[in-house]
Amino acid sequence: MPDITIVGEAQLRALVPLDLAAVDQVERAFLSLATEPVVMPPVLNLALAERHGEVDVKTAYLPRFDSFAIKISPGFFDNPALGLPSLNGLMLVLSARTGLTEAVLLDNGYLTAVRTAAAGAVAARRLARPDAHRVAVIGAGEQARLQLQALALVRKIEHVTVWARDADRAAVCAADIRSRLDLPCVVAGSVDDAFDEADIAITTTPSREPLVHAHHLRRGLHITAMGSDADYKTELSPSVFEAARYVCDRLAQVRVIGELHHAIRAGVVSPETTFPELGQIIAGVAQGRASADDITVCDLTGTGAQDTAIAVLALERARAVGAGTIFHNDMTA
Amino acid sequence: MPDITIVGEAQLRALVPLDLAAVDQVERAFLSLATEPVVMPPVLNLALAERHGEVDVKTAYLPRFDSFAIKISPGFFDNPALGLPSLNGLMLVLSARTGLTEAVLLDNGYLTAVRTAAAGAVAARRLARPDAHRVAVIGAGEQARLQLQALALVRKIEHVTVWARDADRAAVCAADIRSRLDLPCVVAGSVDDAFDEADIAITTTPSREPLVHAHHLRRGLHITAMGSDADYKTELSPSVFEAARYVCDRLAQVRVIGELHHAIRAGVVSPETTFPELGQIIAGVAQGRASADDITVCDLTGTGAQDTAIAVLALERARAVGAGTIFHNDMTA
Repeated sequence: MPDITIVGEAQLRALVPLDLAAVDQVERAFLSLATEPVVMPPVLNLALAERHGEVDVKTAYLPRFDSFAIKISPGFFDNPALGLPSLNGLMLVLSARTGLTEAVLLDNGYLTAVRTAAAGAVAARRLARPDAHRVAVIGAGEQARLQLQALALVRKIEHVTVWARDADRAAVCAADIRSRLDLPCVVAGSVDDAFDEADIAITTTPSREPLVHAHHLRRGLHITAMGSDADYKTELSPSVFEAARYVCDRLAQVRVIGELHHAIRAGVVSPETTFPELGQIIAGVAQGRASADDITVCDLTGTGAQDTAIAVLALERARAVGAGTIFHNDMTA
Repeated sequence: MPDITIVGEAQLRALVPLDLAAVDQVERAFLSLATEPVVMPPVLNLALAERHGEVDVKTAYLPRFDSFAIKISPGFFDNPALGLPSLNGLMLVLSARTGLTEAVLLDNGYLTAVRTAAAGAVAARRLARPDAHRVAVIGAGEQARLQLQALALVRKIEHVTVWARDADRAAVCAADIRSRLDLPCVVAGSVDDAFDEADIAITTTPSREPLVHAHHLRRGLHITAMGSDADYKTELSPSVFEAARYVCDRLAQVRVIGELHHAIRAGVVSPETTFPELGQIIAGVAQGRASADDITVCDLTGTGAQDTAIAVLALERARAVGAGTIFHNDMTA
């Protein structure tokens, strides 16, 4: 049997930084979704209610790659009390020719963070005004920082406002952005204040109530909404659908767990209405921003296609430099 | 982060032989299914039609264990031409307390073979007559051998007949049984001949047409049918349901992919009819064999609960003897 490459989190962080190459790789995943017969089954969810935990398994086959990833994402919400992170996980890379295991990427969720932030950069690169330079960040978690870091790869950012429900966390996040990303950044007292003069807004919260409303939609604005990844989460008021051009990562998915789900439930959008996917805009088969005054929204719920793309990149890089532990799995071993 | 134990196929074969301990462990899985709030989501299937391959992902949480398995089972049907086996795969063991990865069991499908054969032994132990000693084996693949090996752990076998569509393969299988299991074994010229005087029949084929019919059901017979694990596979004629006491591994599953599925489609059984699960018989809450003359059938389609049980056993054994490679996944590693 072929050897298996096992790579730990520290090595993966070094091999796959959040850079333009990662953004380009994730863009290829979206392009595949629009142009190739991608196979992406529904997420497998194992809910361990009595343990306050759950595990999602995502996978997708993209014809452009000779390997595909199976991602295991556990979330165990008593972990912080044990000094452990709630979110963990790993990715397996299998050969699309033989099904044999090629790699075990013990990333503890790092590659998911990268591919999620990279998707935000793809959305902004394709939908935000080229001259967009003022950013509102809603939320103060890991993705607030990473989304901004990724955005700065594709737009020249000159000013950032951060709002979060917890003002202390917002202050820490703003300080991180100033020191780590070297960007001017202030805490906003309200969502309204954060959006004031913003060209781009990134929403990164697990909110169950809309935070962004029609009155926030100034001309030329682009919003990347990446917080909703479950049917009970929502960041955008259904009224946003009436004024903005809505784009999503995967239409079948946002109808069930994305912002579109809530707009349909509110009766603002018909369940049959179709919207462009980000990959269709990349492929040039759907209209993105049509003018500088357009208001665009990109709803990112996360796809197995992104996981496969980032895992393939990680394994290519590991092999190129001989990183990781090689495991021989011969019967005679 | 806790260390991860990585174990290869050769070590797993040594650590987890097909013995009574494996049978007992798989019996615990069935008992859990009947008595505990097991969480066992539907199988995730990734179908790579253009690659002639597919991957199934199975998992189950059993409250009795502090760990659970996620099993990745690829089947790539062009592999033999490359000198590789069609079926492969691995199991991940995760902590049910924290979701953290505890082990990567690179078994290439070995543990699945063991837990499948062990389930057959559980079925025979609970349903076959105590004095059953003549066995008909239908099919000549790996499970034909392993099912018989497992059966011999729970019943004193004195004579075996083997039938397979390919008579040459049947002859090789019979020779293997004679030499490896030291049992008298002859090739039968037909299914009828194989069943003649059999006390136990084991069907292990991927047949798409029934092989076992009502006229095969002599008094006292027990049949373990383990071939059907997809909706297009079937080994038992619906007429068998009219004469035999039918028991299954998981009722919700055999209604979709087991022999029951075909009996319902044939109109022989109503979709609402309930049948006992093997675990209910182990728990003593459902009736198994009621008399020496009863005819019993156990339909085994394979459950994630068995995977978790055998993976937990494998990891316990590996830790007990310090087997496997320990992988430190600290950020600083």
